[in-house]
Parts: sequence; structure tokens; C-alpha cells
Amino acid sequence: MINWKVKEQGFCPDQMINNGNKFLIGNGYMGVRGTLEEFRKEELVAINLAGIYDRAGEGWREPLNAPNGLYTLLKVDGEVYSLPGAAPKEHCIGLDYRRALFSRKTTWKSPRGNVTIQAERFASLEEPHLLAMKYCILTDFHADVELITGIDADVWDINGPHYDAFSFHEEAGRLIAVGTTHESRDQVCVAEGCQTNFISEHKLHIDDRSIMRRMSFVTDAARSFEVTKWIAVYTSKDSDDFEQQAIRLVNDHMKSGYEASRCAHIRKWEEKWAVSEVMIEGDDEAMEALNYSLYHLHSIAPRHSDSLSIAARGLSGQTYKGAVFWDTEMFMLDFFLYTEPEVARTLLRYRIDTLEGAKNKARSYGCEGAFYAWESQEGGYDACSDYNVTDVFTGRPMRTYFKDKQIHISSAVVYGIIKYIDYTGDYSILLEGGAETIIECAKFYYSLLLKKVNKNCYELHDVIGPDEYHERVNNNGYTNRMAKYTFDQAVWVLDKLCELQEDVSERICAMYEREKLKQQFEDASQKLYIPQPDEKGIIEQFDGYKTLEDVSVETVKARLLNEKEYWGGAYGVATHTQIIKQADVAAWLALFPTDFSKDILLANWHYYEPKTEHGSSLSACMYALLACKCDMPDRAYPFFIKSASADLTGHGKQWAGLIYIGGTHPAAAGGAYMTAINGFGGLHFKDGELKVKPQLPPTWKKLRFKIRHRGVLYQIDETHDDMLIKKCEG
Amino acid sequence: MINWKVKEQGFCPDQMINNGNKFLIGNGYMGVRGTLEEFRKEELVAINLAGIYDRAGEGWREPLNAPNGLYTLLKVDGEVYSLPGAAPKEHCIGLDYRRALFSRKTTWKSPRGNVTIQAERFASLEEPHLLAMKYCILTDFHADVELITGIDADVWDINGPHYDAFSFHEEAGRLIAVGTTHESRDQVCVAEGCQTNFISEHKLHIDDRSIMRRMSFVTDAARSFEVTKWIAVYTSKDSDDFEQQAIRLVNDHMKSGYEASRCAHIRKWEEKWAVSEVMIEGDDEAMEALNYSLYHLHSIAPRHSDSLSIAARGLSGQTYKGAVFWDTEMFMLDFFLYTEPEVARTLLRYRIDTLEGAKNKARSYGCEGAFYAWESQEGGYDACSDYNVTDVFTGRPMRTYFKDKQIHISSAVVYGIIKYIDYTGDYSILLEGGAETIIECAKFYYSLLLKKVNKNCYELHDVIGPDEYHERVNNNGYTNRMAKYTFDQAVWVLDKLCELQEDVSERICAMYEREKLKQQFEDASQKLYIPQPDEKGIIEQFDGYKTLEDVSVETVKARLLNEKEYWGGAYGVATHTQIIKQADVAAWLALFPTDFSKDILLANWHYYEPKTEHGSSLSACMYALLACKCDMPDRAYPFFIKSASADLTGHGKQWAGLIYIGGTHPAAAGGAYMTAINGFGGLHFKDGELKVKPQLPPTWKKLRFKIRHRGVLYQIDETHDDMLIKKCEG
Repeated sequence: MINWKVKEQGFCPDQMINNGNKFLIGNGYMGVRGTLEEFRKEELVAINLAGIYDRAGEGWREPLNAPNGLYTLLKVDGEVYSLPGAAPKEHCIGLDYRRALFSRKTTWKSPRGNVTIQAERFASLEEPHLLAMKYCILTDFHADVELITGIDADVWDINGPHYDAFSFHEEAGRLIAVGTTHESRDQVCVAEGCQTNFISEHKLHIDDRSIMRRMSFVTDAARSFEVTKWIAVYTSKDSDDFEQQAIRLVNDHMKSGYEASRCAHIRKWEEKWAVSEVMIEGDDEAMEALNYSLYHLHSIAPRHSDSLSIAARGLSGQTYKGAVFWDTEMFMLDFFLYTEPEVARTLLRYRIDTLEGAKNKARSYGCEGAFYAWESQEGGYDACSDYNVTDVFTGRPMRTYFKDKQIHISSAVVYGIIKYIDYTGDYSILLEGGAETIIECAKFYYSLLLKKVNKNCYELHDVIGPDEYHERVNNNGYTNRMAKYTFDQAVWVLDKLCELQEDVSERICAMYEREKLKQQFEDASQKLYIPQPDEKGIIEQFDGYKTLEDVSVETVKARLLNEKEYWGGAYGVATHTQIIKQADVAAWLALFPTDFSKDILLANWHYYEPKTEHGSSLSACMYALLACKCDMPDRAYPFFIKSASADLTGHGKQWAGLIYIGGTHPAAAGGAYMTAINGFGGLHFKDGELKVKPQLPPTWKKLRFKIRHRGVLYQIDETHDDMLIKKCEG
Repeated sequence: MINWKVKEQGFCPDQMINNGNKFLIGNGYMGVRGTLEEFRKEELVAINLAGIYDRAGEGWREPLNAPNGLYTLLKVDGEVYSLPGAAPKEHCIGLDYRRALFSRKTTWKSPRGNVTIQAERFASLEEPHLLAMKYCILTDFHADVELITGIDADVWDINGPHYDAFSFHEEAGRLIAVGTTHESRDQVCVAEGCQTNFISEHKLHIDDRSIMRRMSFVTDAARSFEVTKWIAVYTSKDSDDFEQQAIRLVNDHMKSGYEASRCAHIRKWEEKWAVSEVMIEGDDEAMEALNYSLYHLHSIAPRHSDSLSIAARGLSGQTYKGAVFWDTEMFMLDFFLYTEPEVARTLLRYRIDTLEGAKNKARSYGCEGAFYAWESQEGGYDACSDYNVTDVFTGRPMRTYFKDKQIHISSAVVYGIIKYIDYTGDYSILLEGGAETIIECAKFYYSLLLKKVNKNCYELHDVIGPDEYHERVNNNGYTNRMAKYTFDQAVWVLDKLCELQEDVSERICAMYEREKLKQQFEDASQKLYIPQPDEKGIIEQFDGYKTLEDVSVETVKARLLNEKEYWGGAYGVATHTQIIKQADVAAWLALFPTDFSKDILLANWHYYEPKTEHGSSLSACMYALLACKCDMPDRAYPFFIKSASADLTGHGKQWAGLIYIGGTHPAAAGGAYMTAINGFGGLHFKDGELKVKPQLPPTWKKLRFKIRHRGVLYQIDETHDDMLIKKCEG
């Protein structure tokens, strides 16, 4: 039996930020950092909202954090009992990631006896607007208690403040806080209701950043004094009637009670696990890390929407501007596709619905078609700055080229849509904008194609591949391959549209000169230069890569003058060497393993892996996957564990130059899943049929998982020398 | 009457380095810095040799400095009398730039009376291997003198030491030093002979870095004690018999005496001035500065060779690796072409003879044709490093792209050859390699042409134009225009070859597929994208230039954190602004004034001049020239004076990052000449005929100059409203 609980005993101030990520709860609508009830913005409390952004002044646009309706502070005999201020006798926080329950228990020694807080909370998976908490006070003496609980609107922001104003009021015992944002005057409403199993004197206290009740009462040693809190979060984007809805939601749940809501929440999670749990016999550590990763993916899946995607740091805060990267399509998609394809569809709809933004971006660079945002926010707005890193030596912003040169982003969108169609057989997405999306992405690449006048092939110059340490390179293998893929898929779509023979497809066809486009894309796919293996089987990452200095990661690291300095850019320690940030050629080969023979895959794994810093959490899983394709599950294993444990260990990079980049790593979580199922599990599809080719690591006795494929749920059992695919009942 | 002398009274240690440049003498074979006889390498003494280089270890390859045969140190009564050590009573150095004579006079007060050194030296214009010096000691008491004179081989090097070993010996009264270089085992030989008008005791002293005589004698107050020194410099590249030749040269000249050699030298200079002097009535300052500039050009003209070019800092030291830049063809060529076309031919032959190096460079970048060295040394070897600037913040070398991206260099070579042919009517240079050179340069550009698949024009991407502060730009107007020019000239050459109907032209034709090439170049010229003026008449310097931050030079300068930091590169203060280092669009328009209407020229002058830092000495003259083409001689004037005075004022930049870049500025000198003659003088050629259109600055009453055109010497007299072109006698 594996342990579905993550715990931390004792209080370590250094771990506060990390624990906020590690013990995160969420339900796709919001994420609640694993912080304590008495914490405030200084301790990086955040109730991070999905898909709603604000920009204040010249700062970066970033997602909103809602006012914190969970806030609760305990005073006993006039003294505050809180962390990190008052050293506890005992302290423990825990996350039951099977049931998505956060808990804490803290005991202090007071002059008159022991004071204990025990609390549990969850972000309801059944009701995305709801947070619920049970907060208990236990004392072994008659304590004079003042409990301050309500809504703390003094929220943590990286580039805030985002609320110009708040209004606070009380209505029939419910506390209500409404904040108005700076840029688009959106409103965020938090309603709070509170029940106690004791009688107390209440006083309401409102200042410019909070609305609080102050309850005074005297405890006795015999029982637990329980406060149950219900918090509803709505925004003006959810409904015009957001405030009344919030109050109604609180009232409804207060009526049915904590246990009922908790049960419904747990039931929902059990439904998820019934399909998505991955069982690994013989390796509890791997099974725990992997399912913990899946917990995070479930927690941020936007089930409340039919068109929304996932930020690179999930719902763990405002890092990376809450923006959507290629992470979603290339790393997280498989998990949702296999276990909950509706979520996959929602993620892709977000891309389809932001096509206009991508077309605007392309136009702004003088290109045609759709150039998706490198850091996508509402409407496909690219939140990526031209100055994304700060020079540690001069304090100056450094011109970076992620936004304008990382053109492989558009191909990731195409890759996601096509994978969805291939896997689900659901062509309707094509007719709902998917076709235009794919065609416009192909048009984008087409408009970038360069032909040397004296050569007969097409090239893509001045790009950044997945390895961001080498900027503005020509003919990055990964990028060119993905562009070719895009052309091929666009040709397929142009054919498919005719086949579908529907009104919509006729409309789409009418928009384009179908035959001309098809011819162009066929020509482009045929002539686009794809780097080929040299005599040793090595594929050059980009033109001239092999002429760069060949040194070890350690040597390059030793050249750092400042541990926070950026390795890339024009003069970074890695820039003029062969040291790369993350899987690049390896990513290509992991995605298209049949492009070359196994020998070639192997040669490139061995060539590039030692040259990789793995400075991105997207790196390890690609090497793990490719190692599986090379029949080396043992070599894959440590990279798999690294991916699966990214948020358990908290070892990821916290800084890029002078900028904080901490948070959860859902792409690593998704990558771990891909490695387990597609890599070790060897799951693949041939002509729409599901196949497996087990590549289990030596210690694994058995791998069991379920996947939902074209409407049917299958259970797959694999051992080293056997496998069984069977349909599940119902 | 103008003053043909430059003087400095008093001794100022801060001016030592500058004076080395300002008081330089030279004869094309060697340059002798304007340093004192007792100076050593610490004071940047150099007898800088043309066209011979060495590389020691990992340092940059740079030209050789010969052992210093002029070295002389005075001791009186056992005390050293030398600068900068002993503070003088009076001190003066002078340069008679009409006759190319350097002189110094220094008086010290000794305990027993005054001690004076008076010296004069010249680098013979008649005999390029010869230096001569007369050194006089005057005292007003009976002084016990020890004079140490001989050859100081402890030479100044920037990236040395370049001599692995020296051999010293005396032969029949001549001192001989032979140094062997590190890289190619070349030998540099200095022979010294010495005559005195007094009798003294001689002792020979040899150590590992010098061979010296120590002469002891007692002076009297009545007369001057004169030492005449003859120094011959030869290298193993001049002849196998270099040592005997050196001795013979010294002996011959000792026989005929100092006065005879001096007269021959002055006569030669008078011959040069008879043709090249530019007379400006009404503005002595301008006339002096301009003729002083011409003095420098004469001093470095490689008349001893038929295939050699001029380094960017002339013969003033090892700065910029003694390498040849586009400076020669684009800035210096006109002066030689107009006054001494044989020298122009020698300069161009150097390019023709280094075609193989240019072809190798092109190949090394995967290109065809000829990509000339950005910093050309022997054989066309590109001395330019990929790391040409040192970061002042980290001390790290910065990757620069001068070598690989400044492709306009090849067009400068073509420009020079065509200008030579146009001007002289001498087609023989075409048959001696000029034709191949032009065709190979065109092939180079052709192999770089990019065509966007969805556009019908050709583009040149990822280049650096003359403005080096903006690296890796697309469609730099200057570069594209020069490439088009190259295609046009190559087409002309391919036609011309047929016309010439000679064996040689047949051989050249046989090398190329003439018709195919012609068609390609015609197509390229026609389709190459040339940026056009916008609605305000402004031509964008490169794609996207106008989107850069529009700030003043002062604002950008105020952002410097360190006065030595580099303005360009990836993160320099100018990089992401519209501030440019030097004339770029202005250079294009100054070279091709008929490309657009005068209104357009004017609009661009006014648009770009305030955005120009003039951080290169090549900048001012282009703005001056263009101002003349816009009928604004008054606006041109200050830029002309700046160019002409570059080496008089010594105000040029001394540092690029942490690298010393001081020295003389022959391109500024040549640019001043171009401004005077082509700009103010309005000299131009139409259908091979010489025309003038005076544009004199307000203060100028009359401009008179001579030019040699197609074998005939003309004198041109211009006033504000009149002009006269007449053939000179003989």
C-alpha cells in the first residue's frame, strides 16, 4: 500500500515558500497555496485565480489572487498564537493527495497550558467556486480566546497592486469583499460564512484591506471549539450576478454542512482516481511521486470552463505571469487526453479561441498566419516581455528573444489539436476552429520560409529552439521538424475538410484558396531543410552548433561569477559552448522516434545528455522518454524520478537572473506521466489501435493503469514479459 | 602663409602616448612614433613595420615593431638626463610636416650648468629602409659625458613578445641586431652606424635585449657635440641577403653624409607636395589641418611595394592588429587616386593578391565567392577575433560579430577597384586579378541572398552595417545597396572581359559560366531589396530600426555605468535605441547621391545626424560629404574640421571596453581630403570628364588643388562663384 499523504513535521521558516507549492490544493478554478490560516502576504499566501489577469502600471500583467477568506488568527489570554511568530511545541502540515485535503496541527505551550489549532481545508472539486475549512481550537485549560477570522484582502502580488479599491460589507451574517481591478475594472467577490459549535460574542471590524469578525469566548478542556468556514469566490467574468451567487453558494453549503460538502468533494476525487491512478508494483516511491504529480494535474484542470488552459506554474501563484506556454500541449496534454479527454478539449479550445491574438502577433512581426503567444494570457495576448531577464551585474533588463524567436510555439498548438483528433476520433474540433488554427499556423511558418537563392531547400533562420541558451540560431532541428509537421497536418486538414462535407467545412474552404495553399504546404514540407545525422549519427541542434566550445556542464558552471546569473543570452556562460539548457534534439527524437533508426536515437541520447544542464523542468522527461525508445528503461529511470518528484523535492530553479520563478511544475508532472505510460508502458497507437510494448524499469514488477480511448475505458496490465489490455465494465 | 610645423612646448607626461601619434614620422615601410631618443617600451616607443606580422601564443596576431636603433641616453657627471625621469628646464618637440622632420630640444639645469639635447630625425622618403638622426649635446661647462647609444631590442608589444631570440654583433663599427619571430621565424635586422664630430672612448655592451656603445668624453662650452646615426631596417621578407643589405645601406649613407640624405628626403617630399598640397585662402586653420592629414597619408603610403595596403591606425603601432579595414578603399583611396595613382594601384593589388584568403573565409562560413577579411593581414588572413571587446563588468570577452557579419567589406574592395578603373582608365588591373576579385565578391553576395518563399525580392539578413552598435540586423540599407552595386559591377566586368579580347580575358572567361553568372547577377541586382524613403523621406537603416527607442545621444550616454563600457553588443546602452555609432544611411547617400532627390538626402541628414554618436573617426567626413551634396557647406564645415584634426587634437576614442584603440586615424585624414575635394570642391567625373561644382564654406576665399587624371596633371582653382581647371605643364 502506498502512502497518499505528504507531511512535514516541525516548523522550518526556510520551507515556507516551497511548502506553499508542495501542499497546494486547487480545483482548476482556483489554487490555494499550502500556507497557514494566520499567514498573510509576507508568507506568500495566495488564492490564485485561473484565467483572469491585471496589469498595474509598467509591471507585468499577471493573474489575480483573490482576497483570502480563510484568514484566521488566534489569541489566547491576549497573546497571539501564530506562525512564524510564536515558536510551537509541535507542528505538522499534511496533504492527503488522494482526497485533496490540506491539514495542519500546531500546539503551543502557553503560560497556563497547551493551545492547539487543528485545521483542515479543501477546494471543492464538485463546486469550483467553493473553499471550505474546519478550524478547531483545543486547550487543556479555560482559555480566554479571541479569534479573528474573515477576509484578508491585503493580497500578495508580484507586480501589483491589482485592486484599485475594495468594498466590504456584512449581509445576514455573511462577510463580503469585492475588489475592483486596475486595468479592466473586473470585480472579484469573496463571500464568507462561518459556523461555530460554541457561543461567542461577535464584533465586526472593517478597515481598508479586510473585513473580520472578532469572536470572544472561554474554552474548557473537555472539547474542541470548532469554526467551520465557507468561502465562495466569483468574479464579474463568471456572471453579472456574482455577489448573490457567492452568497447563495455559501448559504447552500452551510445548510447541508461540512461533512456533506467534504464527502461530495472526496467522491469526485475518487471518480478521478478510479480512472487515473497508476499502480506500480515493486516501487512505492515511484508510484507515490507519480500519483502525487497526477494530483497536481487534477488540481489545476479547468473543468469549470470549456475554453481555458493551464499556466506554466499551475495555480501556485503569479510566477511566469500565470501564462500558458507550450508546456500544456507538449507535456500535460497526454494525461488529460488519456484520462479525461473533455479537459484536453477545453485546453485546445483555449488555443482555438485565441487564434485572433495569434494572428495579431504574426502581423505585428510582418508575418502571415498565426504566431501563438510565447506566454499566453486572455485573448492570446503575449505577456512575454522583450526584456525577460535582469542582468545581475548591471541590474539592467536584458533583451531576450523568447517572444519573437521561439516560433515552435505555434507547432505545439497544431501538435495538440492533431493528437486530440487522432486519439479521440473527434473531428468536430476541426469544424469549431481547429481547421483554421492549423491552417493559420502553417501559413505562419510558410511566411517565414527562406530560400537561399543558390540552394533548393527552405530554411528557418533566427529562431530559438527548446534550448533557450542559444538564441537566434538558424535551422534548429526541432523547430524545422515541427514546422514540417505543421505543413503536413495542414495539408491533411485541407483534404479532410472536403471529406467531412458539411456546411461548416464549406465555409472554411471558402475562406482559403484551398488548392493553392495545399500546393504551397506540400512544397514547403518537401523542401524544408531537416538536419540529418552525420557520419557518427549525430544530428546538429542548429547550424554551427558543433563548432561551439565542447566543455562539460561543470566547467561551464565553474565559470559563473554570480550564482544567479543567466546562463544564456548573448554572453552567458553556456551561450558559446555546446552546453544546452534542456532536451532539444532529444525532444524531437522523443516525439518522432520513427524519423530515424534506433541507433541514431541512441547516438544522440549519448551525445546530448551529458551536454544538457537540465535547467528546465521540461528536460528530464524528454530524455527519459527517449531512453525508453532506445530500450534503456534503466537510463530513463532517474530522469523519470526527477520529473515526478519536481514538486516533492522543490529542487527546481527558484531564480532566473533576479526574477523569482518558483511554483509548481505541472509540465514535469505531465512529463512524468508520459514517461510512465508512453515510455515504460510503451503505449502507442497504430492505425487508431491501442498497443503496448512494456519497457519496465528493473525494479518494477507490474504497471497497471487505465485509459479512456475513443469512448472505451481500458485497463492495461504490464509486467516485464507480459501484458494485458482489457475493456472495463460500464 | 600657413605654418607647416606642429610643436609642443613643455613636457606633459599625460601627452606622451598622444604625442607618439601626433608627431609620428614614416615612409610607408616603417613608422616611427614621436617619442624621445631615451624612451623605451614603457613610453610606447615603436618602429612599426608595414605588412609583417607575428602571433605569440593565444594573443592576437599583430605587426612587428623593429628593434629601436635610435635609442640614445645621456649621462652627465654620472647623472642620467632623460625624460620623463628628470624634470627639464625647457622642452620642446616639433614636427615639420612639410619636410617630415621630427625634432626635439630639451635643456636641464645640472649642478654645474645647463645641459641641452637637440635632435632631429627622419624616415627617408627616398630610401624606405633608412632612418637618420642627428643628436647634439650642448653644455655651458666642461661636462663629463657618457652617451649610451645603439639598438634597444626590448620593444613594445601589445600581444607579444614576438621575438623568440635576438642575435647581436658588431661588424666593422656597425652594430647589428637580428630578431627571429615566434610564428613564422621571420627575421628582422637593424644595422646601425654612428658618426661623431668629437673623439671619445668607446665601449661595446651587449646584453640579451640590446647592443650599445658607451662613449665617454668631456665637452666644452664652445661647441655642439654631434652624433649622427644611420639605421637600416630590413627583414627576411625583403631579401635573403638582408643583413648585408642593411650594412651596405648604412655605409653608403654614412659616406655621403647626413645633409645629402636629408636633402634627398626633403626633395622627395617636395615632389609630393607639388602635386598634393591643398591651398585654402581665408582659412589657415583648415589648410593646416588638411595638409597635416595629407602628411600622415603620405607617411604611410606603401611606395616600396606593389602589393600592400594601409592599416587602420597607419604605422602608429599595433592597435587594431595592424590590420587593413574597409578604411583604405572607402576613405583613403581618393587621395592616392587623385595624387599618386600608382599607390592606389598598390593598395588594390593587395586585395587582389589576397583573394584566396577571402575565398577561404567565404568557404569557412559555407558561402561561395570572396568574403574579405574584416581585419586583413598577410595573405588576407582575418585577424578579427570573435571576441573583440572585453566586458567591463565581468572582465569576460564579449562575442562580437564584426568578422562574420560585416559583409559590406567585400563591396568596399569592388568599389575601390572600379573607382580606380573609372578614374585612371587602366583596365589592366582587371586582367591581373581584378576581374576575378569583382566576380568572386558578387558570387559571395549571391550565395547570401535570401528569398522569402512568399515574396519576390531578395534580402540580406543577419548583418552589421557601418553602424556597429546594431548587430545582426536584416536588410541594412548600406549593405544591400553596396551588394547591388557589386552585382552591377560584376555584370559590367563580365561584359567588359569580352570586349578586351585578350588571352587573359579568355582564360578568365573560361573559369566561369559567363552567361549564367551574368544572368544571376542581373537578376540579383534587380530583385535585391533596397529600402526606400517613407512618407517623410526617411530611409530606415535596417528592418525595424524605427521601432527602437528614440532618445538623444546625451540620454544614452547618461545611462553608462562605466565610461569604458561598450555602447554596442547585445546589451549596450545604444543597442536598443536609435542611437548609431557612425554614418550608415548617410554613408550610402554620400556615396550614391544620385540614388534619390536632394530633398531625400537632406531629410536623412537631418534625421540621422542627431542620432549619431560619431563614435568612429569614419563618421564625421561622411556627414560632411553628404552636407555638401545637400548644398550645406556651412553644416559640413565642423565635421570636416573634426575629421581633418583627428590626429592633431587626439580627441579620438582611446578605449573600446578594456582594449586600447589609440593611434593615428588615416581614414579620417582621407575623409577630410574627400570632403575638401569632392565635397567643398565639388569634384566629380561625368563620362570620364572632370567636373567641379564649388561648395566652399563661407570663410574660404579660394580653394586650389591639383589632381592627376588619366595621365594629365590639372590645377583647379575655385572661388565661391568661379572656377578654373587647367592642365599643368610637363
